[in-house]
Amino acid sequence: MKTIGIVGGMGPEATCDLYLKIIRNTPAEKDQDHFRVIIDSNPKIPDRTAFIIGQGPDPRPILIETARNAERAGASFLAMPCNTAHYFHEDVKEAVSIPVLHMMDEVASYLKGKVDQVGILASAGTLRTGLYEKALSAVGITAIAPGEDDQKRVMESIYLVKAGKLEPAREIILEQGKLLADRGAQAVIAGCTEIPLILKQGDLAVEVVDATDILAKACVRFACKD
Amino acid sequence: MKTIGIVGGMGPEATCDLYLKIIRNTPAEKDQDHFRVIIDSNPKIPDRTAFIIGQGPDPRPILIETARNAERAGASFLAMPCNTAHYFHEDVKEAVSIPVLHMMDEVASYLKGKVDQVGILASAGTLRTGLYEKALSAVGITAIAPGEDDQKRVMESIYLVKAGKLEPAREIILEQGKLLADRGAQAVIAGCTEIPLILKQGDLAVEVVDATDILAKACVRFACKD
Repeated sequence: MKTIGIVGGMGPEATCDLYLKIIRNTPAEKDQDHFRVIIDSNPKIPDRTAFIIGQGPDPRPILIETARNAERAGASFLAMPCNTAHYFHEDVKEAVSIPVLHMMDEVASYLKGKVDQVGILASAGTLRTGLYEKALSAVGITAIAPGEDDQKRVMESIYLVKAGKLEPAREIILEQGKLLADRGAQAVIAGCTEIPLILKQGDLAVEVVDATDILAKACVRFACKD
Repeated sequence: MKTIGIVGGMGPEATCDLYLKIIRNTPAEKDQDHFRVIIDSNPKIPDRTAFIIGQGPDPRPILIETARNAERAGASFLAMPCNTAHYFHEDVKEAVSIPVLHMMDEVASYLKGKVDQVGILASAGTLRTGLYEKALSAVGITAIAPGEDDQKRVMESIYLVKAGKLEPAREIILEQGKLLADRGAQAVIAGCTEIPLILKQGDLAVEVVDATDILAKACVRFACKD
């Protein structure tokens, strides 16, 4: 049976959210039916967005050390519950000898054929790198991102979640999600692992696509494969 | 800075609960303020209660392997989010070269001087071993446990939580908690890591002592120490 490896701490609460979603997505009647999960929650990995926008240290050395540590501890494959960290997906993949799941590819594969236009609530780092745009355009979906000022509000909300201030964070994200739906998004991706902590299915008039839950389901599916 | 190690999977959701409580008990404004946490969530560790009551395999070999794995992965000390597993606390302590926190000692130290009589909602395994009774009597507190039939109901509730059936589990535990308070308990210990998932502060007329939260606070305190 495979062991799920989580390269975590980006942030810690988002890691906890993925872990819980893996548990909830596993068909189990008793402890022993669950998968073994190795989590290295390493919040010392430098801020991914800060680096991408040229205002912080390179997270790669510690990110790679954390991934290797999870591999050494017995992980059969890895998942990274941080959308922005996927900018370094290739670097991590090359540094370990086990598969590394790809969040945007999983989300794109989930949305394929369902919608034409999808809104993206993500960090400035994730948007800047075009991670979602690329994965979505490969399956024929157009991505709609907030304008510059609105994106600053989204980022404010993400950092509020990381500081444990969920209520004010939620107000901002509801308003931004609604704006994306008004602009024609047929679904909105909660594309930063902090966002599903404050934005749930049913909060918007359109579907909220929880990228963390999709990653959790991919973990369970991958762990079940021979 | 110390790394917190969690010997988990007993059960997975209880492990997740400890992890979240560590995060919530850490004063932090951003990811990087949090502690590194290594979790080996290994649900293949055989059922502790089943072994103690003579109806299942010895969990020690896999429990020890899991503890050693968390140590090798960088943990500075260990916490076990499973009350019953503390019956093997000495075995784990001897198998690793780092400290292993003790849940019952932490709970007893929290309650010392506060109450004379405390109710215990725990697994049949934990009760059989007298883990709480010993730790509490050392600080002058009398433990009150459910009678035989009531204890069967508590155990039913614990296994319902492990199977993800929280609502029926909660009904049973509320009824059992109330019975303990009626018998003179001035506080009730949620002394199985599944129980805080369904029994919260304010649910009973007396204080609910969340052993998982106390362990989380001990982890943060210990991680802060030089």
